[in-house]
Amino acid sequence: MPEQRVPDVVISRLPLYLRTLKQLRAQGQSLISSHQLAEILNLTSAQIRKDLSMFGEFGKQGTGYSVPYLIEQLERILHVDQVWDMIVVGAGALGQALVNYPGFEANGFRIVAIYDNDPAKIGLHLGRLVVKDVATMPDDVRAHRWRIGILAVPEATAQSVAETMVDAGIRAILCYAPTILALPPEVRVQYIDPIVHLQHMSYYLEREDES
Amino acid sequence: MPEQRVPDVVISRLPLYLRTLKQLRAQGQSLISSHQLAEILNLTSAQIRKDLSMFGEFGKQGTGYSVPYLIEQLERILHVDQVWDMIVVGAGALGQALVNYPGFEANGFRIVAIYDNDPAKIGLHLGRLVVKDVATMPDDVRAHRWRIGILAVPEATAQSVAETMVDAGIRAILCYAPTILALPPEVRVQYIDPIVHLQHMSYYLEREDES
Repeated sequence: MPEQRVPDVVISRLPLYLRTLKQLRAQGQSLISSHQLAEILNLTSAQIRKDLSMFGEFGKQGTGYSVPYLIEQLERILHVDQVWDMIVVGAGALGQALVNYPGFEANGFRIVAIYDNDPAKIGLHLGRLVVKDVATMPDDVRAHRWRIGILAVPEATAQSVAETMVDAGIRAILCYAPTILALPPEVRVQYIDPIVHLQHMSYYLEREDES
Repeated sequence: MPEQRVPDVVISRLPLYLRTLKQLRAQGQSLISSHQLAEILNLTSAQIRKDLSMFGEFGKQGTGYSVPYLIEQLERILHVDQVWDMIVVGAGALGQALVNYPGFEANGFRIVAIYDNDPAKIGLHLGRLVVKDVATMPDDVRAHRWRIGILAVPEATAQSVAETMVDAGIRAILCYAPTILALPPEVRVQYIDPIVHLQHMSYYLEREDES
């Protein structure tokens, strides 16, 4: 498959293209040029054309891309023309917010189980789910062949919980704990840490005494 | 200031260096080589040395970097040797999780107010804060000269709330709404969207029928 040679930085942009195209579709737009897409995304149109050309010929010279067709193709490329089951470990405020987040299913994902080790949280009803004992997680993951886990536990336990997930068969982890996990190379990890984004911006903010 | 010419991609890595160094300090480590830091962060040591050299000479040949000194310097560079006041707009599950997140203050940030437009949420006590009517947000921002806002509202209202924030003086927005904001170029925006990260990983996951 030629797709396997695509640089990871290109892959990282495809979800942004897909999100934008779905917004345009919701607004009723059926065609888009690489130039328009570039403007919305603060990229260059050459970049977008180059990224997409790695997967095939999706646009016609002069008319741009068909929005529904490009959505379909990107969903296929990103493997979200199916819905992936996901587990969440950690049923604190963040885990609860994730279970209540309405945006997953329309984008290829579904939270099917949430776990915690706190007896006060086990048994809690969160939407359509009930918080389960994290000790039961490995067997569940094996039985259902779940592949995606969301880590919403404190920093101190993130590494050990991640290792347990991976031992059970999880191959992609979305990590909300402010740490860097050491895991086998075949496991994909993406991090979400508001501090990293805030510090990136505060660099550009003038201090009060400079303004 | 020479720092102003530093590429944004370099700035984006500094918070990761800082986070890692603070973890090492917590573990009692006082010196680190660029090689060790590179291994933890999955970068090259040449990259790390090059990034840091844009801001000065922080390490000694052969002995590596002093962990506490490099932390101090990175905090200065990123302007988090002070604590920035932040507001949150949106007091749903996500906004509530953010208010309860314990990691902000130790890293240069503090949530000082949370707003919503829902009468059922206005007046709610969240930790030490009370949810305020979003109509009062612009005056508060102007009065306190707050610069950082977190957007935790649904996609449909994100753009208009962001514009109101910016009109009042907000210059950096952390956006949790799954959209791309159109704002004046002097406003910094960083996005946190779990879907983008999940779709990045699902690209690499084998479909069930391929495994």
